Amino acid sequence: MSGVQWSTDAALLAERRFDRSGWEPAGTPAAVAFPRTAAQVQEVLREAQASRTPVVARGAGTALTGASAAGAGAIVLDLSRMNRIVEIRPADGVAVVQPGVITAELDRAAAGYGLSYAPDPASVAISTIGGNIATNAGGLRCAKYGVTRDAVLGLDVVLAGGDLISTGRATLKGVAGYDLTALFVGSEGTLGIVVGATLRLRPLPDPSATIAASYPDVAAAAAASVALAEARIRPVLAELLDEATLNAIDPALRAAGAALLIVQTDGGPDEAAHAAEVLAKGSTTLRSTTDPAETAALLAARRQALPAIERLGRPLIEDIAVPRSRLAEAVREIEAVAQRHQVPICTLAHAGDGNLHPIIVAGRPGEPIPEAAHRAADEIFALALRLGGTVTGEHGVGVLKRAWLERELGPASLSLHRQIKAVFDPYGILNPGKGI
Amino acid sequence: MSGVQWSTDAALLAERRFDRSGWEPAGTPAAVAFPRTAAQVQEVLREAQASRTPVVARGAGTALTGASAAGAGAIVLDLSRMNRIVEIRPADGVAVVQPGVITAELDRAAAGYGLSYAPDPASVAISTIGGNIATNAGGLRCAKYGVTRDAVLGLDVVLAGGDLISTGRATLKGVAGYDLTALFVGSEGTLGIVVGATLRLRPLPDPSATIAASYPDVAAAAAASVALAEARIRPVLAELLDEATLNAIDPALRAAGAALLIVQTDGGPDEAAHAAEVLAKGSTTLRSTTDPAETAALLAARRQALPAIERLGRPLIEDIAVPRSRLAEAVREIEAVAQRHQVPICTLAHAGDGNLHPIIVAGRPGEPIPEAAHRAADEIFALALRLGGTVTGEHGVGVLKRAWLERELGPASLSLHRQIKAVFDPYGILNPGKGI
Repeated sequence: MSGVQWSTDAALLAERRFDRSGWEPAGTPAAVAFPRTAAQVQEVLREAQASRTPVVARGAGTALTGASAAGAGAIVLDLSRMNRIVEIRPADGVAVVQPGVITAELDRAAAGYGLSYAPDPASVAISTIGGNIATNAGGLRCAKYGVTRDAVLGLDVVLAGGDLISTGRATLKGVAGYDLTALFVGSEGTLGIVVGATLRLRPLPDPSATIAASYPDVAAAAAASVALAEARIRPVLAELLDEATLNAIDPALRAAGAALLIVQTDGGPDEAAHAAEVLAKGSTTLRSTTDPAETAALLAARRQALPAIERLGRPLIEDIAVPRSRLAEAVREIEAVAQRHQVPICTLAHAGDGNLHPIIVAGRPGEPIPEAAHRAADEIFALALRLGGTVTGEHGVGVLKRAWLERELGPASLSLHRQIKAVFDPYGILNPGKGI
Repeated sequence: MSGVQWSTDAALLAERRFDRSGWEPAGTPAAVAFPRTAAQVQEVLREAQASRTPVVARGAGTALTGASAAGAGAIVLDLSRMNRIVEIRPADGVAVVQPGVITAELDRAAAGYGLSYAPDPASVAISTIGGNIATNAGGLRCAKYGVTRDAVLGLDVVLAGGDLISTGRATLKGVAGYDLTALFVGSEGTLGIVVGATLRLRPLPDPSATIAASYPDVAAAAAASVALAEARIRPVLAELLDEATLNAIDPALRAAGAALLIVQTDGGPDEAAHAAEVLAKGSTTLRSTTDPAETAALLAARRQALPAIERLGRPLIEDIAVPRSRLAEAVREIEAVAQRHQVPICTLAHAGDGNLHPIIVAGRPGEPIPEAAHRAADEIFALALRLGGTVTGEHGVGVLKRAWLERELGPASLSLHRQIKAVFDPYGILNPGKGI
């Protein structure tokens, strides 16, 4: 096709089969396309639909669910070269970007105008806006400042047949027509290919204080995070680390208590003092700081969690969410699952919004995943639904959670999902076998 | 049908033909149903689809677009008796309500737990949650705290054929499946009937200060509101009133300047002082207060606007949104439209999010609407699109803006809208002729 750069290099294809989930698709994709413009994406899709060829869109490939893994015969649509920040309009609080922009780069560019791009998934330094949109990515500060969907005002989307549409708008408010923007956000490349996004930027206050509080057990830490909400305090972030996670990072951390809560507030010194007072109840130690270096050190513990767990073995990162008040119960039940199946599970949680990441340590990389790990994962999904929650808080469905999605949605809703998919992608070429 | 209360009282039918837009449908509805349970709504819809009878859902009938007006042969589904606040769970930051709950009543009930329901359309004291969901209602404080969509976590919806589905979830975060919740929000009763909603409650800070600043012209007032954003200040509300509006309320108000900006902040005294300093530039007078009585008096001017304009004649309330930086240009152009067509237009704006309500004074109630008023409205819609905005910021499409919606969406997007409508409502019984 004219203009689009293609590659069928075997090493590249072998690498582009995978995303960060490690899930292995059947076969190898046919080619990788590197479009640089929306028109080139239109070309690829027109041709793909005509030849009924599957298309798997990809930004940085950081999906944790198999959503950007590509199997036999597929075209990998690599959007990483469409990586321009087209425009930042500070007076409007709006940025216009291409999908391949790295999320942290947008946030940095916005900072030049005293603004922020709020969603900050843990992968923020390497993942792309397009990928964040595909999964409706959350992050640390989304409990206060919203997930990706809350930041997306409008999208340019290439449909399966190659048509280009715009959804939403460049205004902060608007209700004309159905909310197709929200429908595309989180749809994991199954409804259309996002080639441009108009995003909301916000002036975020600076942190007032960062507090690290240790507790004798997870129940006490979870109770403290609920007490924060009941005291009308809205922390920017409230990260909970369980005993297994603390041991993985550094046994010295565990010594202060079996659960650690790291909380940051941005509502001024009075709110910070109030937060420290609330968090002190039931804690074994508590440290509050406004010093930037000390703050960075406190947050580093949270950031070191995943690399530390990876040293124990291959991590299967789960992603359930429960009503905030059920957090302690969820963590306790996860500990019981680990006991029952004799697999190590380290749990991190965004406590402010009840989103837990139980990380199952599933053998060594390269070895087959132990059956016990799969059984443990299934019990965790069942637990999420039993507590009135969801099987995915912010990572999406991909291939790994499809059976559980069906259980969560129920037959009538699933039927609507399939009919909507058929409207947007009548020949089923867009990321087939993923999401719904 | 067993259990459902029905009425065919002529006076009731005559009243239920209309919503607040004054738009007059052809003919009179056949009956009004007053369901009290989701099961009764299912019954009504099952029967309606079987007999291909149009169903027009209605809460308080405060729609400004004809969306809840009901014509010949339709069943009016009056949901006002499903008005229970089922549950408030303060620890989870969640409320579960029936659709007929009055929005202000939910906010009041939440206040008992130190929480708020943020969306506050001007009709908050009389409109229902169900109607707010149907239009994705905004309000004064939504620039900072979000519109209805941002507050809706999950919905129970009866589909056209009588099936009951649940969308979304009771957790603050979740990405399982397509965002059907957002698809129903703002769909004006054309995709399904909301019979229950799980809503997000937030602890909102108390106002720090309320500032009224007068300016020599609208351009200066709009520039001041943009300067606030550029100073990283996020006001709770920023309401702009133009000269015609001030004259309608009280010519004495006009004496202080041709445009008035009313701003409220909740970020503490430092932010309030900073806001006053920014707003002072270019102003003729400025008054900042923390006194509750004085605050109420300042906000009263804004609240008196619509009743004051109604004394001048029948108000056609328009509802465009533009990028925030184009606000002054929009107001100036609207003044030119008023001049050109010799119709009075009073403009109010939610300046924080670029949402303008130009109110065309279109003759006396009961008389035919002058042709000039329709032409003026058309020019205002065209203006919104020309400035990169939308024909409806928060009121919806109904019947009055259908032609303009088609222009805003374009043919490819419109085709998707129609196909989505057909998935949810294959026989076209749900609010036919409204929205898309």
